[in-house]
Amino acid sequence: MHALPRGALALSILDGQSLLPGTKGLPITEPLRQGAIGVQGWNVLRADTSFPVAVLKASALQHNLAWMKAFCKRHGVTLAPHGKTTMSPQLFAAQLANGAWGITLASATQVQVAHRFNVRRVLLANQLVARADIEAVLALLHDDPDFECIVLADSLDGVARLSGAVSARGLARPLPVLVELGLAGKRAGCRTSEQALTVARAIAAADGLALAGFEGYEGLLVTDDRDADVRAVNAFLAELVELVKRADGENLFGGADILLSAGGSSYFDLVARGFTGVDGLSRPVRAVLRSGCYLTSDHGSYQRLLAQLDAREVHGEGLRPALEVWSMVQSRPEPGLAILTMGKRDASYDIDLPVPLFTHRPGSDAVQAVALPPGCTIAKMNDQHAYLSLPEGDIRDQLLVGDLVGCGISHPCTTFDKWQVLLAVDDAYNVTQALNTFF
Amino acid sequence: MHALPRGALALSILDGQSLLPGTKGLPITEPLRQGAIGVQGWNVLRADTSFPVAVLKASALQHNLAWMKAFCKRHGVTLAPHGKTTMSPQLFAAQLANGAWGITLASATQVQVAHRFNVRRVLLANQLVARADIEAVLALLHDDPDFECIVLADSLDGVARLSGAVSARGLARPLPVLVELGLAGKRAGCRTSEQALTVARAIAAADGLALAGFEGYEGLLVTDDRDADVRAVNAFLAELVELVKRADGENLFGGADILLSAGGSSYFDLVARGFTGVDGLSRPVRAVLRSGCYLTSDHGSYQRLLAQLDAREVHGEGLRPALEVWSMVQSRPEPGLAILTMGKRDASYDIDLPVPLFTHRPGSDAVQAVALPPGCTIAKMNDQHAYLSLPEGDIRDQLLVGDLVGCGISHPCTTFDKWQVLLAVDDAYNVTQALNTFF
Repeated sequence: MHALPRGALALSILDGQSLLPGTKGLPITEPLRQGAIGVQGWNVLRADTSFPVAVLKASALQHNLAWMKAFCKRHGVTLAPHGKTTMSPQLFAAQLANGAWGITLASATQVQVAHRFNVRRVLLANQLVARADIEAVLALLHDDPDFECIVLADSLDGVARLSGAVSARGLARPLPVLVELGLAGKRAGCRTSEQALTVARAIAAADGLALAGFEGYEGLLVTDDRDADVRAVNAFLAELVELVKRADGENLFGGADILLSAGGSSYFDLVARGFTGVDGLSRPVRAVLRSGCYLTSDHGSYQRLLAQLDAREVHGEGLRPALEVWSMVQSRPEPGLAILTMGKRDASYDIDLPVPLFTHRPGSDAVQAVALPPGCTIAKMNDQHAYLSLPEGDIRDQLLVGDLVGCGISHPCTTFDKWQVLLAVDDAYNVTQALNTFF
Repeated sequence: MHALPRGALALSILDGQSLLPGTKGLPITEPLRQGAIGVQGWNVLRADTSFPVAVLKASALQHNLAWMKAFCKRHGVTLAPHGKTTMSPQLFAAQLANGAWGITLASATQVQVAHRFNVRRVLLANQLVARADIEAVLALLHDDPDFECIVLADSLDGVARLSGAVSARGLARPLPVLVELGLAGKRAGCRTSEQALTVARAIAAADGLALAGFEGYEGLLVTDDRDADVRAVNAFLAELVELVKRADGENLFGGADILLSAGGSSYFDLVARGFTGVDGLSRPVRAVLRSGCYLTSDHGSYQRLLAQLDAREVHGEGLRPALEVWSMVQSRPEPGLAILTMGKRDASYDIDLPVPLFTHRPGSDAVQAVALPPGCTIAKMNDQHAYLSLPEGDIRDQLLVGDLVGCGISHPCTTFDKWQVLLAVDDAYNVTQALNTFF
C-alpha cells in the first residue's frame, strides 16, 4: 500500500536534484533542476543539446509498455522485467504502473538501487555469494518487512551460504530461493534435473530458506539457427515444468505459490506458451517472464529476434525501437568518411556497431529527421569517435560538418550503462523529461 | 595562483559527499561519507567489499606518476595526459601534482567536469562543432579569465564555427586552436600538409582565434607490425615538425609559444624524440605528449605495447599495471568452468577480455593473492557474468564457490567508464581511499 506515495517521493527527489554542467548530453553552463528540463524548449534536431545525446522516444516506450501488458494478459503470465537493462527508476516505475509484478535484477547493489526508489518486489536472478552482498539484501528484508526479494541458488555451497547468513541475521521470515536450471556448456545453473532437485531439497531443509520455484534462462540458447533454437528452448522449458512437478510431488515448496521463471527478450513468447497449463499441483503456479529489452527494443540484435517473435505471435504491430544516440559530424576528412562525436563511451558495440538512421541539418527550415540512404554504416568506433562510412552517391557531397546523425543501437543494456541521464523526446524530438540511470 | 586551494576545495567536496547503498563495490547498507572509506578497515581479499569491485593499486599509481615525470624531464617534453581515460578528479590532481602541464580531454562536457575540479589548463583534442558545446567552453573561458582551453580544427567549416561563436560571445582573448593533421584512411584531421596549412591560415586570419600549433594522433598507426609502425610514426612526426616550420615561416602563430602535440600511450617515446630539437623558430616550441593510459597501464593491449616501448627506451623498470577488477566465483557448474560475478558492465571487453591473475579464499589464514595457474582465461562475458575457463589440473578441484578472482584488464579507458567509484588499495589490498569518475 506504500508503493505509490513512497515511489513518488523517491522519484520526485530526482526531479528536485540539480544536474551539473558536464552531464553528457545537457547544454547547460549552470546547474539546472532536473524537473525543469521539460520546459527548457530544447529540441535535438535544432541542436539545442550537447552532442552526443541519448534519447528515448516517449511514444515508442508507451507503445511497448502497452504491448507487453497486453501480451502478458493474453497469455496469463506475470512480468518481472529485467531492470539491469535500464537501471532507471523512472522506467521501473513505468513498468510497474503498466502491470509488472516486480523488477528482476542481477546484483545486490542493483537491488539496493531499486529499493531506494521503492520497488517493492525484486527477483534477483543471480546467485548471491559474497558476504557483503548477501548482507545487503538481508538488511533490506530485515528493515523493511513489506519488501520482497527472491534469489537463486544452483549449488549446495550456495544454499549453505544463504542459510548461514539468514540464521546469523535472525530474519523473521524465510528467504525465498529459486533453483536455477542451467544448460550444458552455458552459464550458471544445475546441469541436470537430479542436481536441481538435490539443491531444491537442500533449500527446503535449510534453516531460514524456502523453496520458491525453479528458474532458467533460455536466452543463452540463441544461435543463428532459429528452428533449432525453438526446439531447444521448448525442451528446456519442458524440463523446468517437469522439475516443478517432481519437487511438488516431494512437497518441497514453501511459498503461497510456485514460481516458474524464464524469459529473456528473444523467446519470451515460447516461455509464455511453455509455462501455461501447469496445474493440479499443491498450490498455484505463477509463470514469471523477465524480459528487459522489450521496453526499448533496438535497431539491431533484438529487432531481428523480435521480428521472429512477431512472426510466431502475430498480434498487431510489434515492439518499437525507442532508444537512439544522436551525434554531430565533426570532420569530413575523406569523401566516403564522416567522423561523428560519439564513441564507445556512448553507444553499444558488443553485438553490432550502431546503425545510422537519420540526418538533419540544424537551421534547416523543416525541423525533421531525414532517413540516411542505404549503405551508410558505422565502420568503427574509438572511445570518443565513430567512423561513418558513406556509400557512393549524393550523400558524400551533402553531409557536412555540423550535420546531425541519429543512430539506432543494438543491445540496449550496453547503451543505457553509458548514460547517467537520458532525455525523453516526443516524436518531433522536443525534450520532455530526463531519465536517470544508476549503474 | 588559485589552483591549489580551489582544487583542494573541490576535491574535499567529494570526500564530504555521502556514498549511497547501491554504489558498485561498496559494502554499505547506510550512506557513508566518502572521506571515511579509508578508515573502515575494508580488505578486498577478506571479501569485505561488494563484488565486483574495481581497485587501483596505489603503489603502482605512484610508480607510474614518478616514471612519467622522469621521462618527460629526461626528454624535455611537456605532459598533458588524456583525462578521458579516467575522468577522475583525484587522478587529474595527482597528475598535475606530478608535473602535468594540463589535462587533455575529448569533449565539452569533459572540459566542464575538469573545470569544476579546478583543472586550469585543458587541451581539448577534438573538433568542437555543436553550438551548445562551443558555448559551454566559451562560457568557461569568459567567466574564468585564468582558465585556458586549446581546441582543434581540421576544416574551414570548423574554423568558421569557432570564429563565429567567439565573436558572438565577445570573448576578450583569442581562442587558441591547433590544426589537426590526420592520416589517410584514419580518423579526423587534414589529409595533407597543404590542407593543414590552409586551415592554419584561416585560423590566423579569423576573428577571435589564434593559431597555437599543430597536432596529430600517431596512436592510430598501431598495427601488428611494430617495425612498420615505428617507421610510419616517425614519418608522421616529421610531417608535423615540417608543418610547424612552414607555418612559422608564414608567421601564422599567435601565442607565446608554439604547441606541437601528439602521443597516445603506445609510441610516446617516439613522439618525445621526434619533437625535440625543433628550434630556430620565431618562438619556443613546446612538445606536448597526451598519453592517458600510462597512469594505470594494463594487463593486455598496453602492457604489450609498453613492453616494446621499454625495449626502445631502456630505463629501469617500466610502467606497472594498476587497475584490477575483483569478483567472486558464483557457480562451478562444470569441471572446466567457473562463473564470476562480473561482466560487460564491469570490465573492458573491446580489445581483449579480462585477464585472470589471482585467486584468494576469504577466511584463509594467509590473506594473500595467489597466482592462478597458466591456462585460466575469461572465455566470454555477458552483461553481468564472466565465464572463467579452467585448464586441466588441480585448479578444477580447488576453485570453489565463494573464492575470489582478481582480473587484470586490457584498455583502461573502457574499464574506468564502468565505475563511478573505484577503490584505491595498498599492496595488501586494504582499501585506503575512494576515487570518483565523471563520465
